Amino acid sequence: MAGNSYGNLFKLTTFGESHGEALGGSIDGCPPGIALDFEAIQMEMERRKPGQSSIVTQRKEADEVQFLSGIFEGKTTGTPIGFIIPNTNQKSDDYAHIKDSYRPSHADYVYEKKYGIRDYRGGGRSSARETACRVVAGAIAKQVIANVKINAFVSSVGEIFIDKPYQDLDFSKIESNPVRCPDEATASKMEDYIKEIKKQGDTVGGTITCVIQNVPIGLGEPVFNKLHAELGKAMLSINAVKGFEFGSGFCGAKMRGSEHNDLYNADGTTKTNLSGGIQGGISNGMDIYFRIAFKPVATLIQKQEALTTSGEIIESQGKGRHDPCVVPRAVPIVEAMAALVLADFYLLNKIYQ
Amino acid sequence: MAGNSYGNLFKLTTFGESHGEALGGSIDGCPPGIALDFEAIQMEMERRKPGQSSIVTQRKEADEVQFLSGIFEGKTTGTPIGFIIPNTNQKSDDYAHIKDSYRPSHADYVYEKKYGIRDYRGGGRSSARETACRVVAGAIAKQVIANVKINAFVSSVGEIFIDKPYQDLDFSKIESNPVRCPDEATASKMEDYIKEIKKQGDTVGGTITCVIQNVPIGLGEPVFNKLHAELGKAMLSINAVKGFEFGSGFCGAKMRGSEHNDLYNADGTTKTNLSGGIQGGISNGMDIYFRIAFKPVATLIQKQEALTTSGEIIESQGKGRHDPCVVPRAVPIVEAMAALVLADFYLLNKIYQ
Amino acid sequence: MAGNSYGNLFKLTTFGESHGEALGGSIDGCPPGIALDFEAIQMEMERRKPGQSSIVTQRKEADEVQFLSGIFEGKTTGTPIGFIIPNTNQKSDDYAHIKDSYRPSHADYVYEKKYGIRDYRGGGRSSARETACRVVAGAIAKQVIANVKINAFVSSVGEIFIDKPYQDLDFSKIESNPVRCPDEATASKMEDYIKEIKKQGDTVGGTITCVIQNVPIGLGEPVFNKLHAELGKAMLSINAVKGFEFGSGFCGAKMRGSEHNDLYNADGTTKTNLSGGIQGGISNGMDIYFRIAFKPVATLIQKQEALTTSGEIIESQGKGRHDPCVVPRAVPIVEAMAALVLADFYLLNKIYQ
Amino acid sequence: MAGNSYGNLFKLTTFGESHGEALGGSIDGCPPGIALDFEAIQMEMERRKPGQSSIVTQRKEADEVQFLSGIFEGKTTGTPIGFIIPNTNQKSDDYAHIKDSYRPSHADYVYEKKYGIRDYRGGGRSSARETACRVVAGAIAKQVIANVKINAFVSSVGEIFIDKPYQDLDFSKIESNPVRCPDEATASKMEDYIKEIKKQGDTVGGTITCVIQNVPIGLGEPVFNKLHAELGKAMLSINAVKGFEFGSGFCGAKMRGSEHNDLYNADGTTKTNLSGGIQGGISNGMDIYFRIAFKPVATLIQKQEALTTSGEIIESQGKGRHDPCVVPRAVPIVEAMAALVLADFYLLNKIYQ
Repeated sequence: MAGNSYGNLFKLTTFGESHGEALGGSIDGCPPGIALDFEAIQMEMERRKPGQSSIVTQRKEADEVQFLSGIFEGKTTGTPIGFIIPNTNQKSDDYAHIKDSYRPSHADYVYEKKYGIRDYRGGGRSSARETACRVVAGAIAKQVIANVKINAFVSSVGEIFIDKPYQDLDFSKIESNPVRCPDEATASKMEDYIKEIKKQGDTVGGTITCVIQNVPIGLGEPVFNKLHAELGKAMLSINAVKGFEFGSGFCGAKMRGSEHNDLYNADGTTKTNLSGGIQGGISNGMDIYFRIAFKPVATLIQKQEALTTSGEIIESQGKGRHDPCVVPRAVPIVEAMAALVLADFYLLNKIYQ
Repeated sequence: MAGNSYGNLFKLTTFGESHGEALGGSIDGCPPGIALDFEAIQMEMERRKPGQSSIVTQRKEADEVQFLSGIFEGKTTGTPIGFIIPNTNQKSDDYAHIKDSYRPSHADYVYEKKYGIRDYRGGGRSSARETACRVVAGAIAKQVIANVKINAFVSSVGEIFIDKPYQDLDFSKIESNPVRCPDEATASKMEDYIKEIKKQGDTVGGTITCVIQNVPIGLGEPVFNKLHAELGKAMLSINAVKGFEFGSGFCGAKMRGSEHNDLYNADGTTKTNLSGGIQGGISNGMDIYFRIAFKPVATLIQKQEALTTSGEIIESQGKGRHDPCVVPRAVPIVEAMAALVLADFYLLNKIYQ
Repeated sequence: MAGNSYGNLFKLTTFGESHGEALGGSIDGCPPGIALDFEAIQMEMERRKPGQSSIVTQRKEADEVQFLSGIFEGKTTGTPIGFIIPNTNQKSDDYAHIKDSYRPSHADYVYEKKYGIRDYRGGGRSSARETACRVVAGAIAKQVIANVKINAFVSSVGEIFIDKPYQDLDFSKIESNPVRCPDEATASKMEDYIKEIKKQGDTVGGTITCVIQNVPIGLGEPVFNKLHAELGKAMLSINAVKGFEFGSGFCGAKMRGSEHNDLYNADGTTKTNLSGGIQGGISNGMDIYFRIAFKPVATLIQKQEALTTSGEIIESQGKGRHDPCVVPRAVPIVEAMAALVLADFYLLNKIYQ
Repeated sequence: MAGNSYGNLFKLTTFGESHGEALGGSIDGCPPGIALDFEAIQMEMERRKPGQSSIVTQRKEADEVQFLSGIFEGKTTGTPIGFIIPNTNQKSDDYAHIKDSYRPSHADYVYEKKYGIRDYRGGGRSSARETACRVVAGAIAKQVIANVKINAFVSSVGEIFIDKPYQDLDFSKIESNPVRCPDEATASKMEDYIKEIKKQGDTVGGTITCVIQNVPIGLGEPVFNKLHAELGKAMLSINAVKGFEFGSGFCGAKMRGSEHNDLYNADGTTKTNLSGGIQGGISNGMDIYFRIAFKPVATLIQKQEALTTSGEIIESQGKGRHDPCVVPRAVPIVEAMAALVLADFYLLNKIYQ
C-alpha cells in the first residue's frame, strides 16, 4: 500500500535513502533454476551510476550490489533474492544548507507535510538514487524474459530530437556515446548542448523512447491492468517523468480512424503499427514502443529562491554534483521498469497455458 | 491479478460483457455513514450513456444502476456496495458478421490468442460498455472526497483545440454543448467537424484535459505508487487512450530547469505550477491537471480489410451504431477514474493523521 | 483490504446482506475454456440452503444463482464470472425486535461500534447467508482442479463423535443422512441429539473433518503463505468457527519426534501421515486432512439477556427459523473454501512449470 | 504472491536462508514519527535466539539487527525500514550429510519437487531462522500499538500442561524460567522433561497460549479477513504449528448455545468471554486469547530412516545443535506475529475514524 513494491508475481520491494547506510530490497517470485549472469547485472548498474562521463554528475558511487539470498551455486532457487547496495560516498554536509528550507520543485515540502518529518539529506527516499534497486531487479527480469529485446534510448534533449522512425536506428550504437542516442549526428549536438547548459549551472529536460521486440502475443490483462497502463505507471513512477505515450500517442489523437487502423496481414501481423504492439491492453506480437518525457532536473547550480521551514523566501544555490540532464542516466532505468512489467505479465500468462 | 479490480482501500471490482445479461460490480471499502446522492450517480450515468446527442452513437441503453447491498436507509454501511446495470438493448445479431473475423485495431485477435476463446458479441469484455461500472463507482468516490473538485473536458478533436490555459475557461459551460468543450466557439467547430466525419463513416481522435482542485496536501505514495503514476495508469486503462501527460508534460521535456522550477510563495503555494500539483509523487495542494490522448474509434462505417479466423483477408464494414468520436462520452469516465484514484489515496492518508 | 475478496489468481469478491435485494459477486481469474457443469454448481447450493431436513432451519430460500458474465456458450471465457443470488424470502419484520438491542454472541454490537451504523435486519453482512456466494465460487473452483477430491463431513456434534480414522469411512455415505456424517450409527445418534436440542430451543456445536485427496506435490508457498496457513484462514473465516487443526493437530503437541516423524517409502510417499499432507507449507502428495471446530449457534429460541442500544439489559428471545446445529449445512461451505484455496495455489504453481 | 510478505498497511517483506550471508527485509507502512526503542527490539531478538539456556539449542548466533533505512535521528520517517541480520555462525559442513537425502518430516523433499532445486544447507529458506525477521518487525509493531498488551507463554510441553485459566497466571513470571511458562511448578516439570527428552536425542511438542489485552473495539474486517482468521493464518505460518484455536476453541464445539453465549454487562463488556474477544471477526474489547499447537522438532539426534535423492531408504542421524523442544523459543515469534496482525488492522481502522 505504501508503495515500495512493484509487481505481483515478479515482485520487487525496495528500501533505502540516498544518504543512509545502504539501499536494498528483495525480488519475490523469480522463477527457480535461472543461472544468473552477474556481469550483465553489474553492467546495468554501471550504466545508471553517476560519474560515467563529463555530461553527467561527477559524484562517485561504487554501486556494487551484494546478493544476500535466493541464489545457490549461481542459480536462483525460487526463494526471495535479497540484496543491498551500500552507500559509500554520501557527503551529508553537502546537504546541511537544505535542512531548514524547501527547494523549488523538489519533494522536500510535501514529504514534511505528509509525514511530519523528513530525512533532509539529499532528498532521502525521494532521491533518484532509489532507482539503483530497480536496475538490479530489472537486470534479473531481463534474464527471466530472455527472448524479449528491450532497447531504450534518448530521443530528444531540449529542442534537439532524432528526426527518424526507430526502425531506421541502429540500437547497437546506443552505448557508443555518453548521451545514449543511437543517431550519432544528433548525439553529438545533444552532447554539446548539455555541456553548454552545464556551464550555465542550468539543466534541461528530454525524452526517452523505448522499443520492445519479440514480445509473445497475449501479455497484459484487459480492463484495469492493461499492458500499456502498467507500462505507463511504471514509467511515470521514475523520478522527473511528466508524460507517457505509446504507439501513435498524442499524434493519434489528431488522426482519423481510416488512417489509424492497423490492417492485418494474413499471418496476424499488421501492416502498420500505430497501435504500438498492444490491442485492448494485450500484446499482439508487434513491436511495443513508447516515449517518456522527463522534466529538467530541479537542482540548479545557480541562485534561486527557496522557502524556509519558518515561511521565509530566501536565496539558495544547489551545491554538490548534479546532473545537467537526467535522460542519459535514465535509459537503463526505463529498460529496467519495462523488464519488470513484462516479467510480471509473462509469469501471469503461464496460467493460461 | 487478472485485472478486474481497481484501488486498494476504495476498491472497485467489475464484471460484465457488452452483450451479456448485465454488467456489475462491487465497491469495497467505502466509508460508512455517507448519505448517498443517488441522483448525482444517475446523472453521471446519463453523461456517459450512448444516444445523448447527434454526435454520439444512437444506440439506446437504459444504463440504470441497481444497488443490491451496502446501503441501508440511504446510507453506506461500510459493507460492499454491490450493483448491476442490466443490458437492455443488446442486439447480438449486429455482431454476427464479426464472429469469424478479426476487426483491425480491435481486441478480437488478441483475446482469442490469449484465452483460446472469445465472446464475439460486440467486443465482449473489451467493449467500452464496461466503463459504465467505473462511472457508478466514480460517482460514489466523488462523494467520499466531497471537497475535491474534478472537471474534465474535451480540449481537442482532431486538429481543433482550445487555445487557452484552463484558468481562462468556465467549467460550468462544459455541459452546455454536446462536445463537452467549455470554450463555446471551439465547441461549435468541433461539433461541425464531428458531424462531417460521421457523414463520411469515419472517426476521429481527441484529447481530454482534467483539472482537479482543492486537493489536500500529502496524497500519493512516493516511489512506485506516485499520485501521477496511479492517475496515469487509471487513465491509460480507459479504452482508446494512447497517452498521458501532467503538469508541463511533454513540453516540459524541452524546457530548462531555470524556467521550469515552480518558485514558492511564503504560504507554501507556488508562483507557477508546471509541476501540475504533484511533487515527488505527492500532492502539494496546487491544482492537479493532466491531458489524455484518445485514438480514433476503430469501428468505421466504411469498407476496410479484416482478417478471418481461417487466415484470409476480407472486406468488412462496421454495422450498428458507433461513435464517430469517443471523447465527449469519455469525459465522465475520466472524472470517474480520477475520483477513484483520489478516494483511494485520501483514505490511505488517514493513516498518517 | 476491507476483506470481501478471497484469493489472488482465482479471486472471489462478494457482496450482499441477508435481507437486501440480492447477494452476489464475481470470480476473477478463472481459466478460460472450462465447460461448466451448472448442475453440479446448483447441487452445492442445495446442500447449503436452509430447509433441507427437519434438523436444519425451516426457512425457505430459493438460492438460485444467476450468472451474468464470463461464460459464453457454456464455457468460461477468462473474463470475470459475475453472479447474483436474489434474496426471495427475507422477512425483515422477523428482525424488528433486534433493531434496538444487541444479541449476545452476535456481531451486532461490534458492527455498530466499528461502522457507526448497522443494517439490523438478520445480521446483515455478518449473516451466514453470505456463504452462499462462497459455495458458488467453490463449486467452480472444484471444476478447475477437477482431479482433486475434496470430502468434508460432520465428525462430531456436541459430545458425539466418529471414533474411527477417516480411512475407515465411506465418503459416498456423507449425503445419505441429514447430518452429513458418513458413519451411519453415529449419524443416527447425532440426528436424535440435534432434534432433542432443537426441542429445547437450544443449539449445539460440532466439528467438521475435511479430507483432500489426489493433490499434486508442490502446492503452497513457504514462509507466510503456507498451504495450511491459507486453509486455516479460509476455514476460520467461516461463521462460527473457533479452531482449526491439520494432520496430527493438537494431539501432535503431546507427541515425541520419534513417534511423529513420517518416514519415507522409496517412492517419496510416507508410511504415516501425521504431517497431514503438507511439509513446510507445501503439499507432499499425501492426503491433506484437517478438522474445524464450530461453536453452537448464538440464536436461541429461549429467553436470554440482551443489551439495548441505550445500555439496558433486557430479556429477549430469538424468533424466526434458526439452525439448532450449524455443522450439517457448513459441510459444503468447508469444501467450497478448501476448493478456493487449492485452485489459487494450483494456478500459482503453473508458474514453476 | 510468492508469500514472503505479511500484512497490507503495515507490511513486512523478508528474505534470507539459514546459511546464506544474511537474513533481512523491510517494513513498509510504519507510521512516521515513532521514536523507536531499539533496546526493546534487541531484547526480543535475544528471546528468540538459540543458546539462551540448557534446554534450547546450543548454536550461537549473534542475531544482531542492522537498520539500513527508514529511521532518521532515532525516529521512523514513514519510508520503508530496511534491515539485515548477518548470519555469523553458519557451519555449512554440518549439513553436507543431507545434501543427497530428504530428512523425514522436513521440507527438503517438497522444495526440491516444487522448485527443481534446493539450497540444502540447514533447511535454507524453510529454516526457522527466518523467523528472526518476524521478531524484528513484531518488535516495531508492538511500538505502533503501544497500548495493547501481548503476552504469550508455554502452556504445555508433551503431556504436561498448566491447569489454570490464564486469569490466574502472573505474566511477569514468563521470563523467569527457560521454558517461558508463568506457572513455576509446571515450568519446573516441563524443564525436567525437556532435559530428559534431550538426553534421549528425541524431541517433544507443546502448546503456546497468547493473551492480548487492551485491544480497541472494532479491529478486524468481517467476511474473509476476520481478525481471528488473520491471527490463525499468522500463527499457522510459524514453523511446526499444527493447530490454532481461540476463545472456547475445540471445547466450544461440544457446548450448547445456552452455555456458550457471552451475556452482556450494561457497559458492553461481557460476563463471560468464550468468544475470545472477537465477534463476527471484529474485536469487542474483551481479552483476545488463543492457543497454538507445535509438533515436535523433526531433527532427532537418533538414527532414523531418510530417503536419498536417488530413491533409496538409508539410516541417517541429525547432527548439529538442535532444539529438543521448540516452544520456549517460539514464544517471542508468536507475540511478533500477533503484533503484526494487530498493527495492520489498527492502521486500517483509522480509515473509519
